[in-house]
Amino acid sequence: MLSAHELQQVLHNEIPLTQTIGIQVTECSPQRIELTAPLEPNINHKCTAFGGSLYSVAVLCGWSYVYQQMKLNQLTGHIVIQSSEVNYLQPVDGDIRAICEAENSPELKRFSKIYRRKGRARIHLQVKILFNNRVAVDFNGQYVVHC
Amino acid sequence: MLSAHELQQVLHNEIPLTQTIGIQVTECSPQRIELTAPLEPNINHKCTAFGGSLYSVAVLCGWSYVYQQMKLNQLTGHIVIQSSEVNYLQPVDGDIRAICEAENSPELKRFSKIYRRKGRARIHLQVKILFNNRVAVDFNGQYVVHC
Repeated sequence: MLSAHELQQVLHNEIPLTQTIGIQVTECSPQRIELTAPLEPNINHKCTAFGGSLYSVAVLCGWSYVYQQMKLNQLTGHIVIQSSEVNYLQPVDGDIRAICEAENSPELKRFSKIYRRKGRARIHLQVKILFNNRVAVDFNGQYVVHC
Repeated sequence: MLSAHELQQVLHNEIPLTQTIGIQVTECSPQRIELTAPLEPNINHKCTAFGGSLYSVAVLCGWSYVYQQMKLNQLTGHIVIQSSEVNYLQPVDGDIRAICEAENSPELKRFSKIYRRKGRARIHLQVKILFNNRVAVDFNGQYVVHC
């Protein structure tokens, strides 16, 4: 099983900007991926997190979930974001914390089956950025995995 | 009228990460905002631009369009992104170039009138990231301006 440390290394190696924005993997389990990033490198003039940084942490959280599922199912392939919808519900004036929990997603069950058969599969994931125990950003992303 | 240099200073001062990702304002006119960013600080392991960086350049391009309209109409206020939809149509394996052209938007005409009356207004903007003369990323954002 992929550890939080291993996933963090993957992110830092594959996308150097993740080091600049301070991405840390705080949980990596089949149930849940949690990524965090400190406010400081992502701050804007209102002392809240920049919308582009919030998006980056969210899109990587979903990407990490797919990456982990691929590892669990002993699959390899390219994972790309195809489309997304984001709602910014409240400002984040502290560290960024993104969570993806998709264990019970019916798509997840079909995903590896379809990928094995067709060499290409889509998966929709929801990622939430929480702040003060409330959802600050609601991210919905469609990822595509291909050989 | 706001110059490209002035807008770039605003972006670099208000959101320090824009310096890290290398945002340059290459056009700032009432007709059009064009932002660019080099591939190198935004690269991923496939040698294409990271989806979070593409998003950041696009969301700032729309933000800049609203900022410029506020200046043209001698208005002040806070501009925030409220929601967005993004479609990634093709990879960008070179510099990032985002364009917002909203001159003929009917919303733009209503925008300053509503803001003056209510102290709050919404505006929807489309931003395109072009690569090899094709749309690589189609971004649609809803911005809110408030006092």
